[in-house]
Amino acid sequence: MGKSSIGVYGMGVMGQSLALNMMNHGYQVSVFNIDYDVTEKFVQTKALGKSVQPCKELKEFTDSLEKPRRVFLMVTAGKVTDLVIDQLKECLEEGDIIIDGGNSYFKDTIRRFKELREYGLHFIGTGVSGGEKGALEGPSMMPSGDPEAYQYVEQIFTDISAKAKDGAPCCAYIGGDGSGHYVKMVHNGIEYADIQIICEAYDLMRNGAGFSIEEIQQVFEQWNQGRLKSYLIEITSKILKKKDEETGKYLVDVIQDKAGQKGTGKWTSMEGLDIGAAIPTIAESVFSRYISAQKEERVRASLELTVNLSAEVTDKEEFVRDLEAAVYAAKICCYAQGFELLKKAAAEYGWVLDFGQIAMIWREGCIIRADFLEDIKAAYDQGEVSNLMLTSKFKKELLDAQKSWRRIVCHIVNSGIYAPALTSTLNYFDGYRCERTSANLTQAQRDFFGAHTYERTDREGIFHTIWEEE
Amino acid sequence: MGKSSIGVYGMGVMGQSLALNMMNHGYQVSVFNIDYDVTEKFVQTKALGKSVQPCKELKEFTDSLEKPRRVFLMVTAGKVTDLVIDQLKECLEEGDIIIDGGNSYFKDTIRRFKELREYGLHFIGTGVSGGEKGALEGPSMMPSGDPEAYQYVEQIFTDISAKAKDGAPCCAYIGGDGSGHYVKMVHNGIEYADIQIICEAYDLMRNGAGFSIEEIQQVFEQWNQGRLKSYLIEITSKILKKKDEETGKYLVDVIQDKAGQKGTGKWTSMEGLDIGAAIPTIAESVFSRYISAQKEERVRASLELTVNLSAEVTDKEEFVRDLEAAVYAAKICCYAQGFELLKKAAAEYGWVLDFGQIAMIWREGCIIRADFLEDIKAAYDQGEVSNLMLTSKFKKELLDAQKSWRRIVCHIVNSGIYAPALTSTLNYFDGYRCERTSANLTQAQRDFFGAHTYERTDREGIFHTIWEEE
Repeated sequence: MGKSSIGVYGMGVMGQSLALNMMNHGYQVSVFNIDYDVTEKFVQTKALGKSVQPCKELKEFTDSLEKPRRVFLMVTAGKVTDLVIDQLKECLEEGDIIIDGGNSYFKDTIRRFKELREYGLHFIGTGVSGGEKGALEGPSMMPSGDPEAYQYVEQIFTDISAKAKDGAPCCAYIGGDGSGHYVKMVHNGIEYADIQIICEAYDLMRNGAGFSIEEIQQVFEQWNQGRLKSYLIEITSKILKKKDEETGKYLVDVIQDKAGQKGTGKWTSMEGLDIGAAIPTIAESVFSRYISAQKEERVRASLELTVNLSAEVTDKEEFVRDLEAAVYAAKICCYAQGFELLKKAAAEYGWVLDFGQIAMIWREGCIIRADFLEDIKAAYDQGEVSNLMLTSKFKKELLDAQKSWRRIVCHIVNSGIYAPALTSTLNYFDGYRCERTSANLTQAQRDFFGAHTYERTDREGIFHTIWEEE
Repeated sequence: MGKSSIGVYGMGVMGQSLALNMMNHGYQVSVFNIDYDVTEKFVQTKALGKSVQPCKELKEFTDSLEKPRRVFLMVTAGKVTDLVIDQLKECLEEGDIIIDGGNSYFKDTIRRFKELREYGLHFIGTGVSGGEKGALEGPSMMPSGDPEAYQYVEQIFTDISAKAKDGAPCCAYIGGDGSGHYVKMVHNGIEYADIQIICEAYDLMRNGAGFSIEEIQQVFEQWNQGRLKSYLIEITSKILKKKDEETGKYLVDVIQDKAGQKGTGKWTSMEGLDIGAAIPTIAESVFSRYISAQKEERVRASLELTVNLSAEVTDKEEFVRDLEAAVYAAKICCYAQGFELLKKAAAEYGWVLDFGQIAMIWREGCIIRADFLEDIKAAYDQGEVSNLMLTSKFKKELLDAQKSWRRIVCHIVNSGIYAPALTSTLNYFDGYRCERTSANLTQAQRDFFGAHTYERTDREGIFHTIWEEE
């Protein structure tokens, strides 16, 4: 057996799937795992008969690779990644390439990139989206690092990535150091918001308008034929068909309403706060998961804070039309927030990001995949984009949705449904298009109590007022 | 001249004010500043004739203090604080006490506390609220560290702190290591939300209901006689009287609507996200400052995203009554969020916090000072409190406000006013009291695309469904 094209370190579900994906594309792959039993089982089952080289020792693993060596890490993000890199460093030579495909925090990636560069090694941090299935059949890939090293992985990455309908690979070089993991993080933040909007639409039909699960299922199936068509809408329509084998009820009705999370939505929200990007829809979506987790407290509160509300839906078809417009408008605004965050990040961290291209590589393989992303690309192709909401197609759609969206939010308010994404996104929209906010009063207050000074509308300068005589 | 009771390091505005406050309470104070000219000027002007000992050299400064030495730092938070502590360490002896009264990040305080303990020094991190005037006349103080060291500063702190109407000092030992700075941070987060709610009420009257500044001023003056009575409402009513000397217009009308910030609201929001506390009102208030800062983009967007809206106010008195109820309800909920964050923090960082007492020391001296905080104390005095919203008085007031609050939010939606705090807080309230949220669908989706598993409503366990046949 000759040298392998690439090595995959970490035989968890994702590592195995990615390694198989590479083999399926004709690459010989060396595989390594701390616990060799896992490697052995993998080689004797899923990878049986494929071009795989199982390695027991780390040195054996790195020796089995073509130069420059390409080592793809698929290990737990955080300290484990640092430990593995430290061990690997000893077995690699100048010019070799370590790739981190884990869900790493972008600031760790920036740090590792610098440390390894000083050590003479290349480091590629890459977002890999699509879960187990995506990893096997084609993920959306968001690699970053130095362009020189990227040349050595481009072919493999392009081969194993998802392909859009037009055949284009859902993989492209993102930019410097941690930008790939950053873009993946923002993808996940958008995913949180997209999921939340869909769940609120479901809830509003179910608990705010008396729809049956069958009716709601049909709505999502119908929406998946139109402009909302997306993987998340599609799986929602499938989920709502699924019956529980034990009880015969719809499965969604027996699932507990406590949402888990793995932290990337939280990272995105904290990052938006940190660098000054307004991304309320994403943050509200994360908060909604926290509130969902307080199940026992909610049940108790529901008995104590009973509010007598009534919001009637007389025409279900009209309601669904309104809701579709609200969902679509909120979706535009939450993607606008994600891209706004990317724009701010590019300035903050010194990256040159191609926003249209980022939209293109999210078209397949990842959770937010949708034709909608082609519209975003088209919007960026029109030229300088200050914000997606101001580009012609989206602007028109946002304006067309106004009456429907506002009717839906009033319905939310009057029926007492918890729908923070649909609600706060409309408010965000109104804030973005607000010529004069109430921040003049904020500034007056801050100057009053803390002498924080203010600007004036009529001339340049920094001003302070003695608001009260002592 | 004998030894001084305490030394103040840092002769900025806050340091000078605190030192004077101490002298005014009969303490002899040594003062030190990197640039001695500032110290000299202070001693020859503001501190003239007072019991002050100006020091040129650091050694001279520490030698001038009684043992155990008490050194109160009032320097720029961050690296400067670390540098100063490093220098001071060399001049202090075991058992001496360094106090940090700056706006330090609580995790820095935790770290410094540990480092200094290993070095044999005590460290007290204290929140100091009230700005320059508060520092001079009596701030709200939130000290933390080891109780043993606190004994040595308790008398001075109690003397210089603000006093509530009943004479009680607005200072109390908060808890371990960084808890004092944490509580100060949460105070500021609540302050952001309180300010935002007030500004939205102003905006809604001004731009959503056609009130004149005079009418709005009267509303705030009237509100300050009732349950909303607070320092922030009071200064708002004063601000709205102030005319610009140059133009003769109301000053608030010539102040630019770009709000600044110093980062503590951002810290609070990031912290809520980090430890899983839902504090959307605080986060939305921070985002609103970011949106306010995008002035040029907002002006452009206002021309492009023009929405034809009309929301009439026929009865201004009724509108003001509704608005007062909405503001009050939102205020209860945003304080509930702040205390919820403190509760989560106590568990997270191992602090024993007395929430009622924290409310008491915010009654005077700080920006959110108000009689309202006595109601919070009273609520905690009733016994185990899972959330302020469920305590009898607040629960009743929240329920009483329902119709008004919902009318106001619908008015916000239909008039297109940017009022994220009033809006998202209602949604938060509805989420908190929601027996069943839409998170069951979120969990179904997460299990569908990522095999993240879910819980069931009808029995214990962790479940996963094969949603689709391959």
